[in-house]
Amino acid sequence: MNLPDVQSEPDHRGIAIDEVGISGIRYPISVYDVEHGKQETVATVSLSVALPAERKGSHLSRFVEFLETHGGEFSPETIASALGALRDRLDSPIARIEVQFPYFLRRYAPVSNASGLVDYDCAIRAALSPRRFELRIRARVPVTSVCPCSKAISDYGAHNQRGYLTIDAKPQTAATNRPEIWFDDLIEVGEGAGSSPIYPLLKREDERHVTMSGYDQPVFVEDMVRNVANRLRSDERVEAFSVEAVNDESIHNHGAFARLSWPPDLNGGHPW
Amino acid sequence: MNLPDVQSEPDHRGIAIDEVGISGIRYPISVYDVEHGKQETVATVSLSVALPAERKGSHLSRFVEFLETHGGEFSPETIASALGALRDRLDSPIARIEVQFPYFLRRYAPVSNASGLVDYDCAIRAALSPRRFELRIRARVPVTSVCPCSKAISDYGAHNQRGYLTIDAKPQTAATNRPEIWFDDLIEVGEGAGSSPIYPLLKREDERHVTMSGYDQPVFVEDMVRNVANRLRSDERVEAFSVEAVNDESIHNHGAFARLSWPPDLNGGHPW
Amino acid sequence: MNLPDVQSEPDHRGIAIDEVGISGIRYPISVYDVEHGKQETVATVSLSVALPAERKGSHLSRFVEFLETHGGEFSPETIASALGALRDRLDSPIARIEVQFPYFLRRYAPVSNASGLVDYDCAIRAALSPRRFELRIRARVPVTSVCPCSKAISDYGAHNQRGYLTIDAKPQTAATNRPEIWFDDLIEVGEGAGSSPIYPLLKREDERHVTMSGYDQPVFVEDMVRNVANRLRSDERVEAFSVEAVNDESIHNHGAFARLSWPPDLNGGHPW
Amino acid sequence: MNLPDVQSEPDHRGIAIDEVGISGIRYPISVYDVEHGKQETVATVSLSVALPAERKGSHLSRFVEFLETHGGEFSPETIASALGALRDRLDSPIARIEVQFPYFLRRYAPVSNASGLVDYDCAIRAALSPRRFELRIRARVPVTSVCPCSKAISDYGAHNQRGYLTIDAKPQTAATNRPEIWFDDLIEVGEGAGSSPIYPLLKREDERHVTMSGYDQPVFVEDMVRNVANRLRSDERVEAFSVEAVNDESIHNHGAFARLSWPPDLNGGHPW
Repeated sequence: MNLPDVQSEPDHRGIAIDEVGISGIRYPISVYDVEHGKQETVATVSLSVALPAERKGSHLSRFVEFLETHGGEFSPETIASALGALRDRLDSPIARIEVQFPYFLRRYAPVSNASGLVDYDCAIRAALSPRRFELRIRARVPVTSVCPCSKAISDYGAHNQRGYLTIDAKPQTAATNRPEIWFDDLIEVGEGAGSSPIYPLLKREDERHVTMSGYDQPVFVEDMVRNVANRLRSDERVEAFSVEAVNDESIHNHGAFARLSWPPDLNGGHPW
Repeated sequence: MNLPDVQSEPDHRGIAIDEVGISGIRYPISVYDVEHGKQETVATVSLSVALPAERKGSHLSRFVEFLETHGGEFSPETIASALGALRDRLDSPIARIEVQFPYFLRRYAPVSNASGLVDYDCAIRAALSPRRFELRIRARVPVTSVCPCSKAISDYGAHNQRGYLTIDAKPQTAATNRPEIWFDDLIEVGEGAGSSPIYPLLKREDERHVTMSGYDQPVFVEDMVRNVANRLRSDERVEAFSVEAVNDESIHNHGAFARLSWPPDLNGGHPW
Repeated sequence: MNLPDVQSEPDHRGIAIDEVGISGIRYPISVYDVEHGKQETVATVSLSVALPAERKGSHLSRFVEFLETHGGEFSPETIASALGALRDRLDSPIARIEVQFPYFLRRYAPVSNASGLVDYDCAIRAALSPRRFELRIRARVPVTSVCPCSKAISDYGAHNQRGYLTIDAKPQTAATNRPEIWFDDLIEVGEGAGSSPIYPLLKREDERHVTMSGYDQPVFVEDMVRNVANRLRSDERVEAFSVEAVNDESIHNHGAFARLSWPPDLNGGHPW
Repeated sequence: MNLPDVQSEPDHRGIAIDEVGISGIRYPISVYDVEHGKQETVATVSLSVALPAERKGSHLSRFVEFLETHGGEFSPETIASALGALRDRLDSPIARIEVQFPYFLRRYAPVSNASGLVDYDCAIRAALSPRRFELRIRARVPVTSVCPCSKAISDYGAHNQRGYLTIDAKPQTAATNRPEIWFDDLIEVGEGAGSSPIYPLLKREDERHVTMSGYDQPVFVEDMVRNVANRLRSDERVEAFSVEAVNDESIHNHGAFARLSWPPDLNGGHPW
């Protein structure tokens, strides 16, 4: 049976499309993991290619075929080559991929050493064009934050809450198309930027330690993004980054946030 | 033009359907408000009717017509009569409605009296059958909770966080199909059950007050649901209720929760 | 260091709590899988126990310890025994668990046989009391639905859309505390209840087949829940079930839905 | 009582912060509406200012005071002046605001003229610096899309689904800091770019019309973004725009999407 190939017909509007693809596809993947080599998780994936002005459409089933063939393995070594394969499969000069997933690390309580897993929302976003390979890795890191103002103005106590540091890094990939920095590094930087890391499992002696050490190091959202920036701006594995801190304020029904990009945008730093 | 009416055809599987309707429809509504008489907000609405075994389908466009005609005004007086109109319009013995919306109340800081609005997720769920009128009103109330254990075991400080109390009440409506209790009442009960209410706007003197008064009244999630139950079990305007407390734990990446129903379910209280 | 155990103190309000526990904890788990024995996925977990009136609080860290020890393996054989262990660990007569996760099945295109994975939102909910073991398994199944009315009244075409069938089954577990029915069965029932199953990967010949076979079998949401009920009411492995169908209507900005429980609730079938 | 002002203390890390503020605050607002002058809705608001390197923190309570004072009225005339007031209140050179809300328009069925409201997710994002005023307005428009491939390869029928066109426009505001284009215009462009607009209320004669006219105008996601681009690239009220189309594919469990920016980005058009 000879079925027409509508997507391959010409288009006459003269408008190239930056991205055509599939989104919101959930898939079991494995991700490189510094401690174990790899870990199994579940991702939400978007895949796209650029579409030239003269082509009517893209063959979307090939994106799913790509995902099946590629097998869902993501590591520093495989990202650029996967994009090359996607570009070839879809016959396009530019391919892009975005993979979001929970990434799990074992965390140990500060006194008892009792341990459990913490989940971090992470993402890989990458693009490959004839001219360059672009990569971003992102981690969202939960922390405890204790309010410096509340502590300073009160005779006892201080409001605190869960906060989140989202670090989006553009790794140095110059020579090899391979990042030297990974999620574990970003998470460690984020966990050091609040009043205290959060933990999955705390016994009473741990809870005492976490309560007092958090109270000893109060931070505003402003401090949290500066703490991250202070670490990453001198890290040669990172070419650029942005960081956002959000506190789910325990005394309000809204969040407090701070955000910065590095290197600073001379035009005022706004994303649009 | 004479178009076939497929929905009115007979069905032969012998299976009655509890609910057929529309869901996820956003609509501007007005809700009765104790202070101002009414307030404007935006709701997500579900409307349904029971469908007898012998009828193939329901005419869904009539639900939207009902919403247009009814005008989106919700007060203690109008809920039962709206259900009656929906039942008539759809020619069904049983009609149900579920309306979820943010409800806004002005809240005043405890020292400076500075004020702003707090948003509470509220819901009305109601059903009308030939035998009875069923009503539930629900409010989700943000509070601050300070951990009693953390306070007791630490030399200074105590972890705290935003918590939510969700109170779902079945009001007494015996004589009149009209509840004597409303969202403002449930919210006031919820705000009294934590370590401190949350506030939209706090000046420094207020933040000092809130920090210290919260520290003076630490509560577990267990205490929060018991505090609500203690108030509502003796309130004659409430026939039954359930309450859930969830703390977005500031030292963990998961929540702590407690839940109870009143009167207690002798079989163990589980919803399924 | 001798730290006070606040949770073990007595409470004098005389209010027992149905559930105290932790919620929203993400964890890598493995689930029994008919084809491969098991599959790796990521779950969101809630664990709880009943708390007697005279006890102030529950020791929440023990829930995380339980999860670590238990190892996150879920199969028909292990659910009841896991609940027994949780009950012992928390020293409570009643324990409950709720586990939600994407479950993946390979699906084959109807003509080309090209295959990929489909993700189904599934859940296990279970409770163990001294008197009984309660279990529910739930699967949310995407389908294509073609509107019978639109087809009947139009000279050509028919609006269609993605719909979801959510089947919540109470398996027969009488003798063994072990269900004889699993997610694969519920999913297969759901996929047969729409106009067509959805597929991850369709080549042109498949898309032609799916388009025409869907058009040949139009269904309302009412038909979809009746199709499921018709299959399950005679399935001896199921003691009771509820089913909901929701269509993300392609011609509206709201959903159409139908819902029923089996055996029928003589009081009108409303959950509250 | 003389309470310390921690936020006003100096910071020595030498890191300026692009944005500090509050986020996730829900508030009743009124928005300019071409037909009625204004409409009441509920927004989620973020407000922020830039923080110089030498200042430790921002006074977040002033953002809520600003919202209270400003009163939540948004129209083409008021956006720039509101930002000026926010800048003054927070003593910062740069202020930003982001307001997301459902915007309601009455829509009339094509044959019967029966009408109801459609909800569109809309947003205003604006920034004011000493050098310039930046404004974006965004509307998310639901449409019906019928697949051209499915229609061409099948003897009858064609898969279709709900799709969403998200148009993000940078209006010309050169002389007056006032946009000449508003949400109603973007929505009208979006509704013309699919196979058919969606409607809140359709009688049988309308459903026949919508089914057949949609079948007569099949579109890919690629066509939808090109249709929008074709209209807006010649619209002098728009300086730049981006458009994204997403189809909730009725035959798959993932979405198809296309995205473009105008003027085209010579570096390959990727946002990062």
